[in-house]
Amino acid sequence: MFDPVEKLKEFIRHPSVSADPKFKDGMVGAREFVAGLLGSIGFKVAVVPTPLHPVILAERGGDPSWPHVIIYGHYDVQPADPLNLWETPPFEPVIRGNRLYGRGAADNKGEVMTHIAAVARLLERRPDLPLRITFMLEGEEEIGSPSFPAFLDTYRDRLKKADFVFLSDTGIPREDQVVITCGLRGLMLFDLEVTGARGDLHSGQHGGVLRNPIQALAEVCASLHSADGRVNVPGFYDDVLDVEPWERAELAKFGQSEEQYREFLGIPAFHTAKGFSPFEAVRFLPTLEFNGIGGGYQGAGTKTVIPSKAFAKISCRLVPNQSPDKIRALVYAAIRERMPKDVTFRLVDQHHGTPYVVVPPDRSNTPADQPVVLARAFRAADAAVTEVFGQAPLYLREGGSVPIIADIKRVLGLDSVMLGLCLPEDNLHAPNESYHLGVMEKGMRASERILETVAGG
Amino acid sequence: MFDPVEKLKEFIRHPSVSADPKFKDGMVGAREFVAGLLGSIGFKVAVVPTPLHPVILAERGGDPSWPHVIIYGHYDVQPADPLNLWETPPFEPVIRGNRLYGRGAADNKGEVMTHIAAVARLLERRPDLPLRITFMLEGEEEIGSPSFPAFLDTYRDRLKKADFVFLSDTGIPREDQVVITCGLRGLMLFDLEVTGARGDLHSGQHGGVLRNPIQALAEVCASLHSADGRVNVPGFYDDVLDVEPWERAELAKFGQSEEQYREFLGIPAFHTAKGFSPFEAVRFLPTLEFNGIGGGYQGAGTKTVIPSKAFAKISCRLVPNQSPDKIRALVYAAIRERMPKDVTFRLVDQHHGTPYVVVPPDRSNTPADQPVVLARAFRAADAAVTEVFGQAPLYLREGGSVPIIADIKRVLGLDSVMLGLCLPEDNLHAPNESYHLGVMEKGMRASERILETVAGG
Repeated sequence: MFDPVEKLKEFIRHPSVSADPKFKDGMVGAREFVAGLLGSIGFKVAVVPTPLHPVILAERGGDPSWPHVIIYGHYDVQPADPLNLWETPPFEPVIRGNRLYGRGAADNKGEVMTHIAAVARLLERRPDLPLRITFMLEGEEEIGSPSFPAFLDTYRDRLKKADFVFLSDTGIPREDQVVITCGLRGLMLFDLEVTGARGDLHSGQHGGVLRNPIQALAEVCASLHSADGRVNVPGFYDDVLDVEPWERAELAKFGQSEEQYREFLGIPAFHTAKGFSPFEAVRFLPTLEFNGIGGGYQGAGTKTVIPSKAFAKISCRLVPNQSPDKIRALVYAAIRERMPKDVTFRLVDQHHGTPYVVVPPDRSNTPADQPVVLARAFRAADAAVTEVFGQAPLYLREGGSVPIIADIKRVLGLDSVMLGLCLPEDNLHAPNESYHLGVMEKGMRASERILETVAGG
Repeated sequence: MFDPVEKLKEFIRHPSVSADPKFKDGMVGAREFVAGLLGSIGFKVAVVPTPLHPVILAERGGDPSWPHVIIYGHYDVQPADPLNLWETPPFEPVIRGNRLYGRGAADNKGEVMTHIAAVARLLERRPDLPLRITFMLEGEEEIGSPSFPAFLDTYRDRLKKADFVFLSDTGIPREDQVVITCGLRGLMLFDLEVTGARGDLHSGQHGGVLRNPIQALAEVCASLHSADGRVNVPGFYDDVLDVEPWERAELAKFGQSEEQYREFLGIPAFHTAKGFSPFEAVRFLPTLEFNGIGGGYQGAGTKTVIPSKAFAKISCRLVPNQSPDKIRALVYAAIRERMPKDVTFRLVDQHHGTPYVVVPPDRSNTPADQPVVLARAFRAADAAVTEVFGQAPLYLREGGSVPIIADIKRVLGLDSVMLGLCLPEDNLHAPNESYHLGVMEKGMRASERILETVAGG
């Protein structure tokens, strides 16, 4: 059995920045390293080309009657900039205290190594374990997984017969409090472009005769929320399900105070829809958010122009049971109705919509038709986490959207067991990223037990 | 007597683009050319250094009891880009039909040459004319005259004893219809910067708990106009004077149709305050205009961020008797009151305010204390234009702001007689700029008569 921490260091030393072509060698190196490691513990490894960075597909087959788990992860990392803020170089992993520092340590090389080591240990102990395991490690997660849906389509027949997907790429609030993510918000994105005159105009020669497109844009954007913090679009909340009492109760154990959160954000006050704490709002409510706005002169000093065009980049986060297509239609209708008639405008779809994701267990209402192996996996996770970490996991939805989870559900029909292992102090996407070695060790033990239990062992 | 058209060609051949240091030689060349020409007709010429491009000050002195006119103009021109849209090279002047084409032909080298030629012809005919004349030609008009106020301050004592300023740098609607500009709007500019969280946030992880600064900015910007097209700031219109009936009557003779104007702008419809035609609104009403807006992600595709900051660049055009300082205070107060308390914001002054300008004649109400020589100049202009162009000039305010006219009034206490000679077809600031040679010839004759009459001849 290999030393997981030493192997993780080796993994980190390959600078696999997927966003930057300069790091092509690092991508190749990380891929070959992890493919080799999986081969060394008995997996049949394929490197599947995509238009950009290949997917590693490593399989341990077996009897078709055995349960089948797909373990998802990614071998690419975020860019390390700004380099000057790192205490030690990002691709020279080093241990300080009980943490291993380096880019990708926590996102997602640490967790990938956690699961590989758990599998290695388990198979060393039980070489005949009746469990089929497929590692599916992509190289484009940090750039939005552009090749992933097509990959899933191509391998649909091979993958869809698995029982569930297992991954660790979500967060936990404290070392001793694991979270099993059981929901993610959906996403719908578009641009709104408003045009006034055919070209930029002199604001003295023509100011006062036409509606400035920035003004029209501001008027429509301002109309999209009401004073109580809700999205002001007819029908927007029609399909939103009530929050189950168990979800609020679960969240109440989260342990961060509102004041801590407010200070972290650095805002004078929260602005949350009535009846929802900030922690609830971010998980249980949909949003309409302005991601960008632009138009006219933005440089230093002044330019007395009436711009011809102005635009906003807008996105909605969606919760059960909102459909991206329906919400798009409702928001577009509201904008069309409210846009002043003395300007022209265009609504530009961005991205295919990502639906919300909800995974069992809904402990108040477990569906009768929940697949047996999946239900066993959740029970196994609950028991393993409780034993290894000393307390039961929390079952929480997250506010973010992870398109690959929605894609896996959509294309393969599979649910995901998302075992969070990332602490807030891990500095994901930031300088001095690190992974907590105590969490890693406990994560390995939990993963090993979960997989063993799923195997029916 | 020199040939004015040939001299104008020579003037245009010096590419005096004040905005671009690459054209330093062109600036020097244009300056030396025009200084030499003024010297050749008997003027005492000084080239007055400024931090950037010098001012030419050329004087014809005389008995202190003689009337004294300052003729203003500028020898710098706009950049010629985009060069590929010019039919002939911008700095190789050429006559096609009855127009002389070249950058600066109409703005402002043509008019400067018109007045120099008028003066040359007048002094050739009447060498003993009892009139003191000072040409004051700056080289930074196209970049906002940054050195001009300090120049005026330095030369205040010498210049303030003049009787009036005479210039041609404004527009006329048709060849046979001269406009004497008798008012300009003032200007007040500022930036509004709104801050939400301390840094950009992930719109999934945190969307729904705070007010997006773009939303706060849109809400406040949208509040600054009411549906009837007026600025929605308490007190904004308090000091606005009623329009005199003669001004509306004068404007009615302007001769452009609203449909022509709408098509020129390329807008679906006008958006004008009730009771004002577009032509009236742009001259008689103040505005609040958004010159630029920015915040968050503005690139291609999407970035699901809640930006930390958003800003708008805002300007107000002001009419009699609005004060830039008072309007600034009123607008700031409205913004302070309306800005949501869950964001922070900053108001950043831009530029010293430029007050509105009104020059006699107000034909309904000529002030008893109007200086004798100024009154004589206006009467002379009216008669000369009527005789030379075949119909009386229109007395119109313009919507723009010309800071140098306000500076001249503020620093020297002098009013300006603004004899427009630019046609809409002259393509100011655009490719294929040209000057109408018929207007030039008539302008010379009118200028000559005006100056002769002012001299008391």
